[in-house]
Amino acid sequence: MRKPVISSVVKALPHLVPFVGPEQMERLRGRPFRARLGANESPFGASPRAILAMEEAARDSWKYCDPENHDLRASIARVHNVEVDNVVIGEGIDGLLGLAVKIAADPGTPVVTSDGAYPTFNFHVAAQGARLVKVPFRDDREDLEALRDAAVREKARVLYVSNPNNPMGSWWQSADLERLIATLPGGLLLLLDEAYCDTAPQGSVPPVDTGNPQVLRLRTFSKAYGLAGARIGYALGEAGLIANFEKVRNHYGINRMGQIAARAAIEDQPYLAAVVQRIEQARHRIARIARDSGLEPLPSATNFVAIDCGREGVFAKAVLDELLARDVFARKPASAGLDRCIRISCGLDAELEILAEMLPPAVAAARRSRLDQS
Amino acid sequence: MRKPVISSVVKALPHLVPFVGPEQMERLRGRPFRARLGANESPFGASPRAILAMEEAARDSWKYCDPENHDLRASIARVHNVEVDNVVIGEGIDGLLGLAVKIAADPGTPVVTSDGAYPTFNFHVAAQGARLVKVPFRDDREDLEALRDAAVREKARVLYVSNPNNPMGSWWQSADLERLIATLPGGLLLLLDEAYCDTAPQGSVPPVDTGNPQVLRLRTFSKAYGLAGARIGYALGEAGLIANFEKVRNHYGINRMGQIAARAAIEDQPYLAAVVQRIEQARHRIARIARDSGLEPLPSATNFVAIDCGREGVFAKAVLDELLARDVFARKPASAGLDRCIRISCGLDAELEILAEMLPPAVAAARRSRLDQS
Repeated sequence: MRKPVISSVVKALPHLVPFVGPEQMERLRGRPFRARLGANESPFGASPRAILAMEEAARDSWKYCDPENHDLRASIARVHNVEVDNVVIGEGIDGLLGLAVKIAADPGTPVVTSDGAYPTFNFHVAAQGARLVKVPFRDDREDLEALRDAAVREKARVLYVSNPNNPMGSWWQSADLERLIATLPGGLLLLLDEAYCDTAPQGSVPPVDTGNPQVLRLRTFSKAYGLAGARIGYALGEAGLIANFEKVRNHYGINRMGQIAARAAIEDQPYLAAVVQRIEQARHRIARIARDSGLEPLPSATNFVAIDCGREGVFAKAVLDELLARDVFARKPASAGLDRCIRISCGLDAELEILAEMLPPAVAAARRSRLDQS
Repeated sequence: MRKPVISSVVKALPHLVPFVGPEQMERLRGRPFRARLGANESPFGASPRAILAMEEAARDSWKYCDPENHDLRASIARVHNVEVDNVVIGEGIDGLLGLAVKIAADPGTPVVTSDGAYPTFNFHVAAQGARLVKVPFRDDREDLEALRDAAVREKARVLYVSNPNNPMGSWWQSADLERLIATLPGGLLLLLDEAYCDTAPQGSVPPVDTGNPQVLRLRTFSKAYGLAGARIGYALGEAGLIANFEKVRNHYGINRMGQIAARAAIEDQPYLAAVVQRIEQARHRIARIARDSGLEPLPSATNFVAIDCGREGVFAKAVLDELLARDVFARKPASAGLDRCIRISCGLDAELEILAEMLPPAVAAARRSRLDQS
């Protein structure tokens, strides 16, 4: 049978799926989860204004989106006190990461990230045929100095840093990031993934400087704004840098309801503030639940809590598996050093109640199964 | 000021926007259009079931989509009588074209299309750094023999054919396409863009053959299904070919409401049939309106009608401009040979009423302005 030739980059890529979604896990298990605490979504939901806007927009879905994303960008620009041409909209931060790598990396180009940081970024680097250089975490944080040093040493074209960080929930102070930014080598683009910045403590998010073409700030409506399904992310940056996205983005790729919902959401800052409070309360609750099971919650600036299970990665994996078997959807880091943790997303009170009920027997079962094997 | 290095492919790309959207035109004009007949959308709207499904799903938009697109793919597979692994979902056909080019073309690889066919495809070819080879239309149709010959001569890796065709509304019979498919050179991937197949006459859409890894069929919910804003397209193909998309697609890039709406829409085939009838009636009406203005409508298998203005491209451009000035949003082909036409999308009766009112004075004004200049 004659076949098409597959491009050299794609042929070299492994077959893999970045994350198995909870729906697929439910299909494989044959029953639904009782608590959905694994994808760092916000079950507190979007602003009622955003929900109403979507309901009202449903019957106009026959129209294409505005490819300029004009109204949404105007609202974002106003909230951040930047110009509209400092803003580009993408299909979530995921979509923007892919475009950013395409803009700043050629095939074979070195790209630096942390070992254990967002795997979807690595996926895009591989799809672009660029060369990934990984720097270990240090004290459960992305190691800013080592990342900068690696970027200099490798003559990297892209450096990925997330603040606050997923999967550990850790963060840096603004001053630390500003020091990194001030010492970036020429030619490098810093992708500063701030998906979780809405829940970060004061003083940990540097002011946006649209005069610096070396820094792209990536934001999303998927986390605290409660619109993961709408697939709207945005990047803030210097106008000339942002203009490059016009060359490669899928201009009609944004769904119309997502545009409308995201705009309504960002215009409702009081709702966001209220959700951030609920997320904080949920973090405290998760930390208490962890301690009650003899585990150690890590401090978190995000809408999830990484929980140190206190032993090697296989034990944490066993705890996770026992939680999943008890109908609690959660996830865990896989990289060495981080893999001693499980990761629990902030959920509704009723879901955390289920977690409180299921974590102690899950830990006990994991201890038993580890004993059996030793 | 230090800057990031821009990748060689992106640096070489021109700054351009594929299509200016009607919203942006309205902003520039300072007033809204009275008839939206330019983007080949379906103002007849989506199935009421799809609209209801979106309204009900709005408050669950805090959840990510199912990255497998399981339920939607199952419905699509059922309707087309293929397996689920013959189906991949994308952010409209636009998104899938970008991925298909990435999969089958390396930088510098020849890619063949028709001069005047879908410009967004060309945009993706350029973004991939591949080399575009354009074949002229013949008798207002894509020239299948010349396209195949060019693909053979250039040793092309990708061939783009649309059936029915945008912007002319023309089409081929199944037998003609099957002859093309049977004689494709080895190594080539045929992208058969069937965005408009739902409105095509019987016998013009070849049966889907998922045994042939050289042909990818591209479909969309943006046209007759009335869900352009939802940004859902799909490709049908041989399972091994489809599997390549798993390596490069943005797994969480599909919006959740789009998934839900598209599934409800494809499950409502009676509604689709009813819309197709309304589209047919609108085509007839547009044809009559064109003739009443002394212009010649071309036969159409799509949800729009290309209207031959009977003179050179600048005249057709003048007719379009006069229509726009009279608050009728329409578009026109730009390529030599096709540019004598304007393109009118099927609209609601009230919109076609406005067209009937505005086209005669627009043509008269265009005639006057051309006389002034000659």
